[in-house]
Amino acid sequence: MSAEKLSFEDFQPGRRFALGPKPVAAGEIIEFASEFDPQPMHLDEAAGRASILGGLAASGWHTSSMFMRMMADSYVLHSLCEGAPGVDLMEWRKPVLAGDTLSGHSTVLEARPMRSRPGMGIVKFRHEVENQRGELVCVSENSVMFGMRSRPADIDKPGDISMSPEASA
Amino acid sequence: MSAEKLSFEDFQPGRRFALGPKPVAAGEIIEFASEFDPQPMHLDEAAGRASILGGLAASGWHTSSMFMRMMADSYVLHSLCEGAPGVDLMEWRKPVLAGDTLSGHSTVLEARPMRSRPGMGIVKFRHEVENQRGELVCVSENSVMFGMRSRPADIDKPGDISMSPEASA
Repeated sequence: MSAEKLSFEDFQPGRRFALGPKPVAAGEIIEFASEFDPQPMHLDEAAGRASILGGLAASGWHTSSMFMRMMADSYVLHSLCEGAPGVDLMEWRKPVLAGDTLSGHSTVLEARPMRSRPGMGIVKFRHEVENQRGELVCVSENSVMFGMRSRPADIDKPGDISMSPEASA
Repeated sequence: MSAEKLSFEDFQPGRRFALGPKPVAAGEIIEFASEFDPQPMHLDEAAGRASILGGLAASGWHTSSMFMRMMADSYVLHSLCEGAPGVDLMEWRKPVLAGDTLSGHSTVLEARPMRSRPGMGIVKFRHEVENQRGELVCVSENSVMFGMRSRPADIDKPGDISMSPEASA
């Protein structure tokens, strides 16, 4: 059915997926902030310079949303993704300023079948996003659910799968 | 200068701030997803019904962004907020579907002065957002930096402040 899409079995621990590049324009920063986070440093260059962020800076939630889009374009939209139950960690380490360009990668940390949802597995990733100077701006870890290519009974390579306790998802 | 704005001193452990209500329209879900998370279940009612989410469902990042806006309107925009270094926890516990109305509250867990930034303090919150049926849809914890009303040397109520180790922020 979806033979060409990435399935749970394709997310082996250690596999990396490239993210971006994604240039960040001042207009996008202001548009997002106007709707979701209208603090002065996200709306106005002078207010941003006067803040500890040092310039017109994207809302952390905007950075996270841009990072989601980079993941979507890299692998999520080409996979049997069934969504994510949340985020374990999200660090906004440096300001994302107007004119920056973001890139990065997602690395698979672990993968296991879900007992509660036969035919699906959960994959834990670590994500790192940096700016054009190679400075980490955003680090995140979260778990994502993917459909399996094969039915559970068909899995014949349990060596790839860590059978740690089931996530709450 | 900013006598009427909420400062670090106003975020005592246990204080609660109401969030919302925020109605969630189908058009908003599709607009956000088109830009940041274009997975089928966030773009199309039929695809949403066919997914484990059960209907046209907001991207988790959209839910988080709406939650940011509710915090902004409740207290962030009326405070000496200096931003947040990240998110410790973000659980998307139930789908947010078109037609839902979100509300909730932020509760102060702890507050402490920042040694690295005199005149600022960091406040850790737990946030809970529920839908119109009282079901928790989003639970989050994070720390936010606020300016102090008084200079550090003026603080005369250390009993309000837990002197736990400094955050990395």
